Amino acid sequence: MQDLNNGGGAEVYQIRKLELSDKDKGFIELLKQLTVCDSVSDKDFQGRFEELARLGDDHLICVIEDSRSGKIVATGSVFIERKFIRNCGKVGHIEDVVVDSMARGSQLGKRVVEFLTNHASSMGCYKVILDCSEDNIAFYEKCGFKKKEVQMVKYFT
Amino acid sequence: MQDLNNGGGAEVYQIRKLELSDKDKGFIELLKQLTVCDSVSDKDFQGRFEELARLGDDHLICVIEDSRSGKIVATGSVFIERKFIRNCGKVGHIEDVVVDSMARGSQLGKRVVEFLTNHASSMGCYKVILDCSEDNIAFYEKCGFKKKEVQMVKYFT
Repeated sequence: MQDLNNGGGAEVYQIRKLELSDKDKGFIELLKQLTVCDSVSDKDFQGRFEELARLGDDHLICVIEDSRSGKIVATGSVFIERKFIRNCGKVGHIEDVVVDSMARGSQLGKRVVEFLTNHASSMGCYKVILDCSEDNIAFYEKCGFKKKEVQMVKYFT
Repeated sequence: MQDLNNGGGAEVYQIRKLELSDKDKGFIELLKQLTVCDSVSDKDFQGRFEELARLGDDHLICVIEDSRSGKIVATGSVFIERKFIRNCGKVGHIEDVVVDSMARGSQLGKRVVEFLTNHASSMGCYKVILDCSEDNIAFYEKCGFKKKEVQMVKYFT
């Protein structure tokens, strides 16, 4: 285990599913370290949270909370795509993995990716995929991923 | 229009959403040209079809039917991912685009990608993404896409 312990032996870094109350624990501020992420109103946050909750286990966002500060310091999501190929197979898509710049070096990113990967596996996916920058290939290779295809994008805005 | 016309002026190639009856029009056989795709029982096909239908406009599979043969000659899918980033934005993910090897050269692939891209745009997505092989980059560039990141994969089976 790479985790620090805080005296009493409880884990400093708890990994769990996103909860509605995580908005007040810096979840949106953490996402701002990843990409363009405006502030989100409580109402919009709750609306999106509930939409995603209706997908059940087909959509999971995990977070790591620092029990000392009560802040969310890492997150990532995975959603399950159902296909006709591969004998009506399923694919896990990992998205929006980010670790607080102040909390790097504690393998939190690896724990997030493993948590999401395990979820995809437990859901019966035949593979899990993600897109990353060239700079992050080495990190994902350490998580057991291999380079495969090329991501193409078209922006509407 | 690149479409051929069959005397009476009706379009030979009709693009529309997947229907349950498309299983009997060669839909699964077409997917076999894309990747590993075992035969699917009627029951499994219907089950998956209904699961996807429950996602409403968040998951769309389009097909092109050749009105002369009654066969499905092209298909592709797009699903809408809901995020917290980008002001609770949405992203369209295009998957499983394939054109019958006997029907190439009629711009059917471009029509499929445009249909799926337009759907993502109409759903309010800020971008649409897909993964492809190096060989298909030029095709997707013609569809208005640009190379962005690297796809990483982990197989479970």
